[in-house]
Parts: sequence; C-alpha cells; structure tokens
Amino acid sequence: MRGFILALATIAFASSASAQNAILAPPAPPPVAPITAEQQRTIDRLQAAALESDLAWQIVEDLVTEVGPRMAGSEQEARARDWAVSMLREQRFTNIRVEPFTLPYWDATREEASIVSPSQQSMVIAALGGSPATPEGGLEAEVIRFANLLELEAATPAQVRGRIVFIDERMQRMQDGSGYGAAVAKRSRCAPLAQERGAVACLIRSVGTDPHRFAHQGGASRQAAGVSLPAAALSPADADLLARSVTRGATRVRLNIEVDMRENAESGNVIAEIRGRTNPEEIVLIAAHLDSWDSGQGAIDDGAGVAIITAAARLIRDLPRRPRRTIRILLAGAEENGVHGGAAYARDHANEAHIVAAESDFGAGRIYSFRSRFSEPALPYARAFSRALAPLGVLAGDNTAGGGADISAIRQASGVPLVDLRQDGTDYFDYHHTPDDTLDKIDPEALRQNVAAWVTFLYLAADTDWDFRATE
Amino acid sequence: MRGFILALATIAFASSASAQNAILAPPAPPPVAPITAEQQRTIDRLQAAALESDLAWQIVEDLVTEVGPRMAGSEQEARARDWAVSMLREQRFTNIRVEPFTLPYWDATREEASIVSPSQQSMVIAALGGSPATPEGGLEAEVIRFANLLELEAATPAQVRGRIVFIDERMQRMQDGSGYGAAVAKRSRCAPLAQERGAVACLIRSVGTDPHRFAHQGGASRQAAGVSLPAAALSPADADLLARSVTRGATRVRLNIEVDMRENAESGNVIAEIRGRTNPEEIVLIAAHLDSWDSGQGAIDDGAGVAIITAAARLIRDLPRRPRRTIRILLAGAEENGVHGGAAYARDHANEAHIVAAESDFGAGRIYSFRSRFSEPALPYARAFSRALAPLGVLAGDNTAGGGADISAIRQASGVPLVDLRQDGTDYFDYHHTPDDTLDKIDPEALRQNVAAWVTFLYLAADTDWDFRATE
Repeated sequence: MRGFILALATIAFASSASAQNAILAPPAPPPVAPITAEQQRTIDRLQAAALESDLAWQIVEDLVTEVGPRMAGSEQEARARDWAVSMLREQRFTNIRVEPFTLPYWDATREEASIVSPSQQSMVIAALGGSPATPEGGLEAEVIRFANLLELEAATPAQVRGRIVFIDERMQRMQDGSGYGAAVAKRSRCAPLAQERGAVACLIRSVGTDPHRFAHQGGASRQAAGVSLPAAALSPADADLLARSVTRGATRVRLNIEVDMRENAESGNVIAEIRGRTNPEEIVLIAAHLDSWDSGQGAIDDGAGVAIITAAARLIRDLPRRPRRTIRILLAGAEENGVHGGAAYARDHANEAHIVAAESDFGAGRIYSFRSRFSEPALPYARAFSRALAPLGVLAGDNTAGGGADISAIRQASGVPLVDLRQDGTDYFDYHHTPDDTLDKIDPEALRQNVAAWVTFLYLAADTDWDFRATE
Repeated sequence: MRGFILALATIAFASSASAQNAILAPPAPPPVAPITAEQQRTIDRLQAAALESDLAWQIVEDLVTEVGPRMAGSEQEARARDWAVSMLREQRFTNIRVEPFTLPYWDATREEASIVSPSQQSMVIAALGGSPATPEGGLEAEVIRFANLLELEAATPAQVRGRIVFIDERMQRMQDGSGYGAAVAKRSRCAPLAQERGAVACLIRSVGTDPHRFAHQGGASRQAAGVSLPAAALSPADADLLARSVTRGATRVRLNIEVDMRENAESGNVIAEIRGRTNPEEIVLIAAHLDSWDSGQGAIDDGAGVAIITAAARLIRDLPRRPRRTIRILLAGAEENGVHGGAAYARDHANEAHIVAAESDFGAGRIYSFRSRFSEPALPYARAFSRALAPLGVLAGDNTAGGGADISAIRQASGVPLVDLRQDGTDYFDYHHTPDDTLDKIDPEALRQNVAAWVTFLYLAADTDWDFRATE
C-alpha cells in the first residue's frame, strides 16, 4: 500500500511540475541490495554450469520412464516416492525423508460418453476429479447447452430439469496462463449450479487451449458439500460436435462414469535438504509436486518442476562451501486432487523459520519474469534478484507473486515471503492434464534456462543474510 | 518414353550449340490445347463462384455431425450411404444409386497395451486393420526393438522367438506425403517378418508425423496369407517410452487385442451423375471415399474429398447448359481396409467409356500442382488444364499422376487417363487415421480453393471433345 501512495505522488509531481524538469531530473532509482564481486562470480559460474547441464532432463526422463503417471494416493504415487528418495540420495542431499499423510482417493475407471440421437457417435471425455459415478449402466438425457456459467446461472429449473448441462465456454491462450483462472471456474461450479436446477449431469468443454482430441482432466474438488452430480470434460472437437448437434435439434447423450473412491489412501511429501552452514534453522523452501493425473506421463505437470528445482539445488550442493541457510526441497504428494501435500506440510512445519518460498509447477517453458511478494523494506532484495537474473533474459516483475499450490498453505500459516520465477506458459494448457503431457513436450534448452534461473535465486536467497521478511 | 528422348535431344542441342544462341532462340514451347474465350469466361465465373461458396464446408460438416466415423462394412457406413443418397438428391444430381458389394468385416473392440516390467505404464495403441485377436486375456512377452524393417529382416529366430517385435522407424514429413510410402511398409510387413522368426506379436511406431499421443490406425491387409500375428501401432510418445525402457533393460509388455471379424459384411458405392448433353456415354469419373477409420470423425479422410468433388460438380450442375459428357461422382465404400469399393466399381464398369478419372483423398490442404497421366498425343490437353488452373496458384506438374486408391482398379482395367490435383499434405499425416481427424482440422479457405480447382478440371474435361486417351 505504501508503494502505491508513493507511485501516486510521483505521478502528481510529474504532471504538476514542468515536464522538462521531470525529464532532466528523474526521481532517484529505487535502492537495490548490493551483490559482491565474489557473489557475482559464483552466480556467473552457476548460470554457466546450469546452461550446460543435462541433469534436469535426466531426472524428468527417469521419472516418466521408470514411474510414469502417478495419481494421488495410488500405488504409482508410492513408487514415485521411492524413486524420489533414491534419486535425492544419488544427488547427495541430506535429511531425506518421506512425511506421510492420508487423503480420500478418487480415480475414474470408466469414462464413456456418446451422442445416441440423432447421430450415434462416441465422444472423448475425462471425468472430473471427485465426480461421482453415474447410475449403474450409465444415464441418458437430452443436452442443454450454455455458452458460459453466467447463462447457466440465469437458467430456470424448468429449462434444466432432467437434462445434461453442457457448458461450452472457451479458454483464452495467454503467456502467463492467466486464461486458466477464468476458464477453470466451470470445472468446479458447473455441477453445483446444474444440480440446483435439477440437471442429471454436467459436461464442460475442456479447460485447455489446444485443438486436439484430448479431454483435460482436473479436480472439481472445491464443489460445495452435498454436490453429487457426475461431471466430465469433453475434448474440444467433441464440444464442437455436441454444440453443432444441439444447434441442429434435440440431442441425447449417454454418459457412463465409474469411479474408484475410498477414504484414507496413503500419500506423502518427500523432503531433502542442503543443511545451512551458519544458519541451518533458516529455510529457503523450494517446491514441486510428485503426483500427476493419470492420462499423461506427468512430464510437464510436474515432472519438469521436480527436475528443475532438484537440478538447481544439486548445483548449490556442488559448491565448495555450503550456503549459510538451509535449502529444503519439497516434492509434495497429492497436489492435483486437493493440494493435500501442501496442507500436510504447513500443518507440520508452520513454526519453522521459512525465509522465502518458491514453487515450480508450470511446465518447462523459459522463465521470462521474476516476481516477489516481499514486505516493502525487503524490495531492494527483490531488485537484486532481478538484476542477477537479467543475463538469462528474465524481466523484473512486480511484487504480486502468487507462489504455487503446494506452498500456499505454508504462506497462509507463516506469511513466508514468496517469489515467482514465471515461465512462458503459452502452450502449457495445450498439454496440461491430458494424455499429451509427455516427455517430448519439454524443450531441453528451456529446461536448462529454468535451472539457471532457479540456481541464481537459490544461491542468493541461501547465501546472504538478507531478510525477505524485514518489516522496516 | 517419347518425351524422354525429346528432352535428351533438347539438352544435347543446348550444350553443343552456343549457349547464347540457346538463350536467344529457345526451343518452341510445347503445344497447348486452346481454350475459347467463352470457355475462359465460364472458367472465370466458376472459379469465382467456388471461392465464394461454403457448400463443401456444409457437406463435410453435415457428414461428420450427422454420421461421424463410418467403418467399412459397419452400420455407420450404411448410415453414411443413406446420408449420401439424400445429400446428392438435394444437390440435384441424377441417376443416384447405391451399388452394393460385400467384404470381410474387421474392427477392434479392445486395444490395450502396457509395460508391465520394469515400470507399469499403459500405452496408447491402435490395432492394425486385419490383426487377429491376442489369446484370451492377452499375451505378455519381452520386447525386442528394431530401428527399421531392414534390421528385423537381418534378425535370426534365436533373437526374436517368443518376443514382441517393436519396429521404431519414423516417417518423414513431406509436402506431397511421399514419406508415407516408405513408412507404411512396416504396417504390412512387420507381422509376416516377425512371425517367420517366431515372434508372438508386432508393435510399430505409428505411421504419422505428429508428436501427439494418438496411435494411427491403418490396414495391414496386404499381409501374406497365413499371417496370424497380432499387430498394433503405438503413439509416438509411447514408442519413445518403449524405446527408452528397452534401452535401459529387459522390458515386458502386455498386449490385449480383441476384434470383431466376419465375412460378407455389406457395403456399397454411392454414385450420382450429371448426364452428358451430347456424349452421355463418355464418362468423367471423380471419386472420394465414404468410409473412414473409427477413432476420428473421418473429416480429412475422406469427408473433405466427398465435399470437394460434390461441391465442384454442383457448380457444374448449376451451369445454364450441361456439359457434353457425363460427370460421374463415385463415393466409394470400404476403401480403408482393402479398397473393396474401388474393386467393385471396376468389376461393374470396366467396359464403359471412361475418358478421364481423378480422386480427392488427401485431406483439404490447398492444391499446389496439377499432374496428368495421359498418352503423349494428349499432353497438350494437360497443359491447357495447367494454364486454366494457374490463377489458383496451381503449378504445372509432370505426367506421372497416380490417381487414387478408389480409381486404381478402373485404371488397371480400362487404362483410363488420370489427373492428380495435388494437395499440400504437409500436416495430413499429423491427423490421418487418428482420433484427431476432426472437422476443425479443415481450413475453410483451402477447401474453397480445392473446389475452384476441381470445378476448373471438371468443366474442361466434360465440356470439350478433347480425348485424353488419344494415341496419335
């Protein structure tokens, strides 16, 4: 808020005083925390090493080859934890452990939909995470299409009762993925709104930006209690088909979803550290998540994140002298269907001294911007990060960092300052939560640039005495 | 052959005589059949009308919306015939009829493959057309990878016996789709070669150029008699995965294919005509095929072809005066799994006077080149076609036209001259025989350009007395 008032004052000055004066004597640049020549040499070496290293690629290749998809709470996720523990040992981190927790398990075992009248065509769908099964043998009903959620909200029970609601809203492609927030609302809100109006099921156009015949999986876990409507996402071509069919006349769809649900499935967070040299109790937390949806390989979501933060930390581990603070790697379990790992971490670790936290969970696109969420007095440190990152083509961003799903609970519990190393996500939602999330979608060069940016952040965050929590 | 000797003579002349002479006095251009001013005006009007028309789009949109996938010999293909008859009536053609035939029916009802050791991962496959089922419950064996068919040919039974053969050969992307010929060999040859060496099944990297998680369907129907090895195509990402896994160590795969096979399924060719004004017995034959593989919608293969030739013929139908010759539309049945419709057509119609034949079965990419397969004396007519097509950006090609699958039997039986309106197929094999063959992959503008080229060919072929079969 203070920053905002200062900015206003500057604008007022520039417009009331002579414009020429303002040009000749611009306001002093904001302060930047100094980086010593020795630190700069270390940063240069770390960046060069990262840009040459294939370690991140090896890690994500191993994960998708040796484990593959790993649904939260599944046997496959348990294998991923075993894999992670042994990989982190091989990378010579310390204090490696699994912190177990339980969660309600959900997976779809049958996902079928077809137009049965007037044409007969099967459609490609993905049941939304948490969706109940359809009645034994499936259900069949006429479809009512809404261009967006607002239209559904305006609909009456008389229109909707007994029907399958179809929300045909499209997602906008954006570099920063910000089309997701608007588009994803239908994933959680379609079912409750449709149920209130007496619908029998809910279909949505997939939350994604690609034109391919894949349905995008995704949780609908923030549904209000008591919502029991089956819900699924349609591939874009099938959403097109259904829209055309509905436009031509009454269209009936058969939907058959079977699910495996149970309480108290096992999951866990995998944690590893580089213990701080002088201030081991001070923690720089870096996170990614181990679990994935099961239609793809979990390569970009979030094998890439696991690989990026681990490879960056390994470069720090290889320094002749460990940094002052502890670097903690959190490979969270069970992110996709409710962020259970992040919640468990916050429950167990809220009282520790988290100095700063960051997460890599947006694929492997190049990092184009650095953003902080620091207190005002700590902003000179954010500017120092930006300056160190500039040689990698990373722009200085603002102070509105969001962190990531797995660190949001610890942020809420402890107020830990956040940074975002923002990735180009122009094509992220082409692959996100689909069968097409496979290793070949990762660009090895962009992956290396990510590691270079992360190691820069990690080194500066862990080897300084800068306190990002400073309040004055 | 005569053309070849003439060309040699020209080269000899150019190099033995003075180079300057050759530049000042080039050899006379080859003769071009004249187009009258009135014909040219008609061509101009037809091209303009085609470039404005959405009829082709409407036809393919209707086909994929009202029928969808239509496997050879299936109920859905029968619906496609009904749809075609009523569509052709609506377009006011004459002599509309179905010419039935039977074929052996094949479709897969289960297509599952997974790595069971060392990792556990399911893979995306498509059983190859004609593949037998695996034994009840599936089969499981270690995989042996070959980079290409040649490597398999060089392998001994001792290496292969009891294993699943995996051919990992890639297809080259080419504008004219010519990478297909080389790549598709593995589709029919893997199973017999593998069976000879004692393998239990055959997996191939999909014949396709895309990087998406789709397996490409396709027939293996030219297998030698007695071949009974189950065979399937892997998606590119799964071929990558299997290759990585095999490189790391012994890899076992479970394969479960169930099929529905029966003799004497019904299919049929749908035929319609514009009867010739003065020479109705002379037939200009234009073909596309009605059936499709069943994982996609059959939009580019071959809904687009059906739409292009029908829309072009409709523009001819709308001329104030019917052309001299009969234009016959052949919407062939059962092309995909053995070209049964083309064979049936040749059987029934070999003795009719086919003047020229052409087929549209390569998607909806823009036409970039015209190619003939005429006798030498008829080449001036080919040059006239090229001249008339030039305003549409169509290059003059050579005299090596291939026709298309559905007209190859009538070509063989009758020697009918062929033309190819060659389409840009750079991305055709991204979608070909996959779930991704959907309406959105057709560019409406390229579709219109196709219609404009086809109507140019149709008008000139049907309203002249040019005899493309001329022998002197």
